[in-house]
Amino acid sequence: MKMMPTLASLDSAANWRKAPAAIGTPIAAIDTPALLVDLDALEANLANVHDLIHAAGIAVRPHAKAHKSVDLARRQIAAGAIGICCQKASEAEVFVRAGFRDVLITNQVIGQQKCERVARLATQARIGLCVDHPEQVRQIGEATRAAGSLVELLVEVDIGHGRCGVADAAEALALAHAIKSYDGNLLFGGIHAFRGSAQHMRGPGERAQAVHAAVLKLTGIVEVLKGEGFSCSTITGGGTGTYALEAGSHLYTEVQPGSYVLMDTDYAANRLAADMPPLRHALQALCSVISVHSGHAVLDGGLKAFAVDQGLPQILHAGWKVNTISDEHCVVLREAGALPLEVGDKVRLLPSHCDPTVNLHDWLIAVRGGVVEEIWPVSARGAVF
Amino acid sequence: MKMMPTLASLDSAANWRKAPAAIGTPIAAIDTPALLVDLDALEANLANVHDLIHAAGIAVRPHAKAHKSVDLARRQIAAGAIGICCQKASEAEVFVRAGFRDVLITNQVIGQQKCERVARLATQARIGLCVDHPEQVRQIGEATRAAGSLVELLVEVDIGHGRCGVADAAEALALAHAIKSYDGNLLFGGIHAFRGSAQHMRGPGERAQAVHAAVLKLTGIVEVLKGEGFSCSTITGGGTGTYALEAGSHLYTEVQPGSYVLMDTDYAANRLAADMPPLRHALQALCSVISVHSGHAVLDGGLKAFAVDQGLPQILHAGWKVNTISDEHCVVLREAGALPLEVGDKVRLLPSHCDPTVNLHDWLIAVRGGVVEEIWPVSARGAVF
Repeated sequence: MKMMPTLASLDSAANWRKAPAAIGTPIAAIDTPALLVDLDALEANLANVHDLIHAAGIAVRPHAKAHKSVDLARRQIAAGAIGICCQKASEAEVFVRAGFRDVLITNQVIGQQKCERVARLATQARIGLCVDHPEQVRQIGEATRAAGSLVELLVEVDIGHGRCGVADAAEALALAHAIKSYDGNLLFGGIHAFRGSAQHMRGPGERAQAVHAAVLKLTGIVEVLKGEGFSCSTITGGGTGTYALEAGSHLYTEVQPGSYVLMDTDYAANRLAADMPPLRHALQALCSVISVHSGHAVLDGGLKAFAVDQGLPQILHAGWKVNTISDEHCVVLREAGALPLEVGDKVRLLPSHCDPTVNLHDWLIAVRGGVVEEIWPVSARGAVF
Repeated sequence: MKMMPTLASLDSAANWRKAPAAIGTPIAAIDTPALLVDLDALEANLANVHDLIHAAGIAVRPHAKAHKSVDLARRQIAAGAIGICCQKASEAEVFVRAGFRDVLITNQVIGQQKCERVARLATQARIGLCVDHPEQVRQIGEATRAAGSLVELLVEVDIGHGRCGVADAAEALALAHAIKSYDGNLLFGGIHAFRGSAQHMRGPGERAQAVHAAVLKLTGIVEVLKGEGFSCSTITGGGTGTYALEAGSHLYTEVQPGSYVLMDTDYAANRLAADMPPLRHALQALCSVISVHSGHAVLDGGLKAFAVDQGLPQILHAGWKVNTISDEHCVVLREAGALPLEVGDKVRLLPSHCDPTVNLHDWLIAVRGGVVEEIWPVSARGAVF
């Protein structure tokens, strides 16, 4: 195979991809469309969620797929996280290269190139990985043997998401035995159990019921594994919608919230139990008004600046509302009595889904007190492999 | 303002972003999720659309926002295109840097940073730009004066999209006069008139009616401008849904199709007039099966590999169907009688909307005869400014 080109080599003159601001730039002078991170809100979210989980004696392993930022993940580690989660081999590579030494890939990894990447990473950091099929064990087992490294495998259990995960204890046990057959290069670490759909149930009672059912099922599987000599030192899962429930489960050993630190309108639509701290919208988009008309205005961010799988972004400008979005524009409508927008005005919006929205941008502009305090590249943007 | 960091400097060790294949790699060995470009299909689309427009004596100016690829745009120029369209100042910068010498930015550009970028580009290439408000004229006029360059401005006319564009001849005329006041640095070039919504009307009769109404309106405005001494040397617009109509309008001087070259399932849902060549799906995604279950399987591409504003991608594997998509996965369901998928299998899918899907990827893998023939970086990926 010939040498593969890399973006670094092809794109070396790419200074057109400069950040839309410098340290100290007032927010109103940031070029648009840009993603802002409100540092006060981010720090409040970090403290609220980490404190609650730590108070239960459980570890926090935040999901870096939500922000893909090395700088932001460093703040999570500084706030007590034991390591991070990634979702892709290439994403894990970015974080290991940046110095992270405990990375769990909460996904199934298939294919020779990817397994070799993961096996190589395991020579530099503690790497965990999920499996739900013997073929996955075989592939990563062969790769770690060849690399002389050790990867810790978690058996993923389906707790109602209907996506990945084994169905029952018998399947989990079969995988544990398969892992054992690569002793020295694979280590059985325990269980991964995440139900994305439970995160977005709107009522706190529904979410509690979903986690309760999951804990019952997992407890049975853990017992069966233990009876066969497979101790689950790690039981990991949970997210921004349910983190307090896993933390209080007396079963999970660590929790993996991701969106909590940035927040989006989809998670904000969850109703919280009375004793839960509300999380703040640290992530906001800044757009410019590029065209104005009698009843509408046009903003300079569209489908290439906002993911819309969870709905349109929400504009933070009184009396205006996002009506439609196209590749490069949002059309916002003026309600009766609202003050007009002018060409050149800058407005803020709340994204509906932070993970795929951040992945559309090269930069997160961290702001406080009306000015830019830090500039963070979206380090693992586009790490799909 | 301090020096702004650039991704090139921060990301210089980014060889993790390597291409998922090398020249000569068999398709089955390409790492996933990847975007494939079927070169036979692409060449057929290029020939069909360019030939039809050229036969009407009209110029083709393809929209590079659809593919963001310098390599693909070079093929469009080789197939007779007179230049390209871009949608953003930073996108235009990528193409000018790569040697393109005639770029029309089919958008309003606002803000000092962006206007300075455009004015600077105009020292190296012929740059066109749209306006629909005097403030836009003022900003680019001041920037070109400072840079000593000349930008050609097109007055955008709203022909029913309800987004950007002036409403009538009086507004168009006022802008033409504003442009004239920057004589030597701004040039009145004519009219830009594009109706995105008309591109996706399913019936050929509806689309013909929409373009007919637009041509009537534009003809009136062109006459008024001419009467005041403003000759429209360029009248530009149209897209993949209507290109033959603008080509046959006896008014438009150039047409701007973008998606035609790659195609997606949304455009494929348009019913074509009997004499129109059908376009082929040159763009396909390749995904791996990472997890299998009794009635479903899981693919390794999700919302970070597919834009879903126009619906889910369509899997090209008999008896299987995409049911749900999440950040990193598609869940595909097996219909009765379908052959099973196995962990490690690779499957192809058709994206629903090519423009924002390409923008999610670093690479287009050009294939022919079952192997990789060329590897194209998505040169202007993420050029949102």
